[in-house]
Formats: sequence, C-alpha cells, structure tokens
Amino acid sequence: MKKLINAVEDAILEQLQGMALAYPELRISLDPKYIVRADAPLTSRVAVISGGGSGHEPMHGGFVGHGMLAAACPGEIFTSPTPDQMIAAARAAAGDAGVLFIVKNYTGDVLNFETAAELVHAEGIKVQNILVDDDVAVKDSLYTAGRRGVGTTVILEKIVGAAAEAGYDLDRCADLARRVNSAGRSMGMALTPCTVPAAGKPTFTLGEDEVEIGIGIHGEPGQYREALRPVDELTRKLAHDILDDPPYRRVVREWDRAGERWIDREIVDAPFKAGDEVIAFVNSMGGTPLSELYPVYRKLSAICTARGIHIARNLIGPYITSLEMQGFSITLVRADAEMLRLWDAPVRTPALRWGM
Amino acid sequence: MKKLINAVEDAILEQLQGMALAYPELRISLDPKYIVRADAPLTSRVAVISGGGSGHEPMHGGFVGHGMLAAACPGEIFTSPTPDQMIAAARAAAGDAGVLFIVKNYTGDVLNFETAAELVHAEGIKVQNILVDDDVAVKDSLYTAGRRGVGTTVILEKIVGAAAEAGYDLDRCADLARRVNSAGRSMGMALTPCTVPAAGKPTFTLGEDEVEIGIGIHGEPGQYREALRPVDELTRKLAHDILDDPPYRRVVREWDRAGERWIDREIVDAPFKAGDEVIAFVNSMGGTPLSELYPVYRKLSAICTARGIHIARNLIGPYITSLEMQGFSITLVRADAEMLRLWDAPVRTPALRWGM
Repeated sequence: MKKLINAVEDAILEQLQGMALAYPELRISLDPKYIVRADAPLTSRVAVISGGGSGHEPMHGGFVGHGMLAAACPGEIFTSPTPDQMIAAARAAAGDAGVLFIVKNYTGDVLNFETAAELVHAEGIKVQNILVDDDVAVKDSLYTAGRRGVGTTVILEKIVGAAAEAGYDLDRCADLARRVNSAGRSMGMALTPCTVPAAGKPTFTLGEDEVEIGIGIHGEPGQYREALRPVDELTRKLAHDILDDPPYRRVVREWDRAGERWIDREIVDAPFKAGDEVIAFVNSMGGTPLSELYPVYRKLSAICTARGIHIARNLIGPYITSLEMQGFSITLVRADAEMLRLWDAPVRTPALRWGM
Repeated sequence: MKKLINAVEDAILEQLQGMALAYPELRISLDPKYIVRADAPLTSRVAVISGGGSGHEPMHGGFVGHGMLAAACPGEIFTSPTPDQMIAAARAAAGDAGVLFIVKNYTGDVLNFETAAELVHAEGIKVQNILVDDDVAVKDSLYTAGRRGVGTTVILEKIVGAAAEAGYDLDRCADLARRVNSAGRSMGMALTPCTVPAAGKPTFTLGEDEVEIGIGIHGEPGQYREALRPVDELTRKLAHDILDDPPYRRVVREWDRAGERWIDREIVDAPFKAGDEVIAFVNSMGGTPLSELYPVYRKLSAICTARGIHIARNLIGPYITSLEMQGFSITLVRADAEMLRLWDAPVRTPALRWGM
C-alpha cells in the first residue's frame, strides 16, 4: 500500500488538521469530528449539514462554506459518522432556522442521521432529513436498501446550500432538496480498485484488462465486469442506463415535526425526456486525471444532444471519489430555472468557489 | 494500459473537443491546436500565452480565461507544442498590447518558443519570453539544461494573468513574471509512474514499496529512490530542499526588441528567509487524491511556521500533473503585497475560478 500517510489510525485526524490550517474560514472540531463554517451559528438561515464516510474527498468537508454546506461530519473511511458527530455539528451550525440533514442512502448513514434527527429535535432545533438515492446501477446492494446515494449529492448540496443562503425556510429547503434528488440520476464505473488504509489491500481485484460497470463509491460490486472498451462505449453504457431509467418508485422516511414521528412517503421519480434541461456532472473516482474526463464529456454531450436534452451547466472533476480509485461516474440532474439560478449563485468552499 | 480513451492517436483531439463543448467561454482551434479566450483578441491588455506538452492537465488549457491566460498551446503528450501553434495562438489572442510567452524550461519548449517569438516579432506584434525554472531537485536533467520548470508556473500564470487583466503593459508584465519565477521554488516525488498512451507501458518502474524523490513532471529521474516513508518525512525532505536552497545563479535568454536579437542576462535568485510571506502550493501529480494532500499541507505549514515563514495564501489540488501518476509536489513562492493582491484578483478559468 502506497499512500501519503503517517500512522494509519491518524489519517483522518491529520487530514482534518491540514484542512484547518489551509482554510481559516472553516472551524474544525477534532472530537467529535466535524467541519463547520467559522461564521456559524447561522442567523435566519437553514444550516444544511451532510456527512458520510471519509474517502470521498472533497465531499463533504470540502463543500462547507458560504452558499453550500453549513457543516459536515466525516466518518472513518467508508464508514458512517456517528450521531454524536451529527448532533455536535447541528448545535454548532444551527441558528433559529433549523437544520437540514442531507443523507446518502447507505444503511448506516440513514440510521445514524435518523437517530441524530430525533435527538436534535428533542433539543428544540427544527430538523428535516433528506435522502439521496440516485444510483441507477443496482437496487439493494452491499450497505444499501434501495438505490445508493452518489453524484446527485454534490449537485443537491450546491443548489440547496444556495437556497439556504438566500433565506429559504426549512420546509422550502427540504422540498427543493426532494425535487433535486428526484431529478437526479447517476452511474459509475471503475478501472481500478482502491485500498482502505486500515485494510492495507485493495477492496477488490480487477484483471489487467478488466473494468467494473456500475461500481459503488466504496468499491461495492456493480452490474458486471467486462474487458476495457473505448471511452465512447463506456460513456454510452452509463449515459443510456441513466437516460433510459424508467419511472422510479420508492418509499422515503421523513420526520413529521408536528407528530414527532417518522412517516413513510411514496415518491415516483419521472424519467428524462426530450426538452429537459440538465446539469451534467462528469466525476473522477479519484485517481483518474482530468484529461480522461473530457472525452467522457464529449460523448455525453453528443448523446444528450441526440436525445434533445440540453446541458445547461456542467461540472467536471473529482468531487465524489473513492480514495485513489480510477474510473468515472456520470450524473444528470434535470434542472428548472430556479435550480439553475441557485446553481449559479455565489459559493465559497475549498472545492467549489465562484462569484465571490 | 487502462485509460479512458478511444484511439490513442485521437486522445488529445478528443480532450480538446470535450473542453470546447464544456466551456463556451473558450474558443478551441484543432488545427493547429490552441485554446484561446472567446473574447480575444484582447484590446489594451497583454496576451499572456503558455503551452507545453499535454498530460499535465489542467495546465495550461484549464488556465485560459479572464484574469489568467489569454491562450494555451497543447503539444502531444509530454512533447513541446510547435512554433506554428504558438504563432497562431498569438495572432488569435494578441491585440495592441503584445504577447508574453510563459515557457517552462525544457529544451524543446525553449527552442520552439524562441522561434515563435522571432516570427511573431517579425509580424509586428510586441513579444517577450519568460522562462520558468524552479525545480530544486536536479540541475541539468533529461530534456533540460538548468532547472526544470514546474509548479511555480501555475502561480506565475495566475499572478501575471491578473496583472495583464489590470492593464500592466508588456514590460511590466515581463518584469513581474521574472520576479515571480525568481521567488518560486518547487520539488516533487512519485509513488507510481504514469503511462503515455502512445507508449502503452509505464515511463519507468518502481518497486512495491519504492518511491522516487525529486521526480520531474514527465517521469524523468529525480534525486534517488528509497523505500516509502511516512508523509511527514517525505514532506520534510521536499520542504527542506526548497527552503535550504542557496542563492541560485542562472543565465536567461531574453528578446531585445530594440536590437532584434537575443541577449543573455545573469540572474541570482535569493533564498527563502525568516519573515518571508509565501504562497504555498501542494500539488497532486494526478492520481493522488485530495485526502492525501492535506497531511502534506499540515506538515508543510508546521515547517514554515518553525522557520518564521508565513503562508499568506495556499493552493491544494491537482494543477500540474503527470497523467495518472501518484505523488505530490510542493511549491513555495515568496510574495510581496502586489503579488498577493494580483493572486486575489478575480479569475474565471476551468481550473481556477473566484471573484466572478
């Protein structure tokens, strides 16, 4: 295992210490671990908070800042953060407008954020949980019931973070977040595995010429393995699985603040269709350089054009990664004028910054 | 070789086509290959133009835009662009204020940019060449007489690009660029080699537990190989070589516009000292994820503090890469108030964007 670390057990701690030194606009707590805007608590603005296992950097800590997340909770690598981290982050970030927890759909994350929401509510802080479940590759996989939460998370955190910054209240932020998740679909593939430091060996093995289609962001199995093909064919496979995905019916649990209980809601996500405007996100799994993402975008753009889908905005780079894994993912989010306006709004975080 | 490409011979072309689709604020010529701001030619502003072999993305094409480069010329992978690319880029970008060519110190780049400067001058366009030679690892290596041009290039292109945007004339831009280069020093290391698509096999081999200290950005040999050590020790080695570098005496060739000839000037770069303010740049070689750069920054920050050197600004991420190579480099640039003001100025390029 070749990594830039000192002792394996200090890796996350030292990453956070490095971030704290690099970004004085963030305040970083090391016990429990969370990253919060230095200007928190936020007055009259909803605190959008996310978290998840480490190893996906810059997500989520690199998205903390003006116009995006108020705070983020990093777990151990590929392991959910704990409720005490989430509660401490909520206390540090939340003012009078409450907390929106953004949760990627992995069983541990979902349970821990639900526990945290109940306890945060008990402290008198308004709270809502939003689930991201956008991966069309597989349903019910290792770590997950239903679809996994992947690339749409990045787009959602930007858009809803901008809404919170603009003064949307908690219910409007939650509604918007549900809409973004329902409008987003993703799929990924891997050229190589990655190595979790504590394990010291790759999470899986792939042959010299083999790739995994539909990989998860923790190296979980995807749809199938096959020999490496030209990037145009790989892009076509992922893009078609996203664009041809039928209406997706699912049940989400949401916190009913009045009734102080969880209620299940059934939601059906509409498929893509000609005339849609989308935000297109081509993501590196971590070890794939930028130069290999542009050919993906080239083919994706041609496929969208052929289907009458207009790419209104794009994001290309490593934003939701799996350590040093080589590979890419595609995310498309159908975006209305409000979402595009919020996408364009100023943001200042370590990983995304414009307009200020 | 596992890469996201179609035919090897189309790789650069298709990267550029992807960029053209993604960034309508750029105009991309495919024959000869160059990337230019869509609002060029630039009226009353110097056109800062760079170029070099491909494989270092986002450098240089990703730095074209408002407040940074006016144009960039991508060569084949790890191969200098040709004078005809540079001349075409200069014609497309330059208005009345002339052209500043930023040249990394590799023999092919230097010769081709000198040829281009003579021809551009013959067309009546004011021109000046600036050499970047900041790598303290080795002197006189494969491809290079003197020191190689590496990470300082990124910092220089931002600062001098901002100066050009602010209306500095050609001589002031050239003087500033010389000052930035004299103030900058870099060094890198590799955990893994990279593979040039046309070669199909790694540029060199490293043992399971071996790293290369002082690597160049084309995989050229560095100072030595050794067993992988903790990141703190690797960071200390690179930082000390940079900070302890003695006054560096060198001869640079510069175009004498009045005499229409090249003249040699001797320059001595001053070493770092306590009290310096610096821009600190921790760079991924391409395949190293962000999470492994923060521990480097953590240690670098401690070393600078111990020496009385203040990190005034930082940049952390993959900006001057070697395809998918894993490893990192450190660049420190001593910065005065003018340089810091120009660093902070608005920039809008695919790879660096803030303030607009």
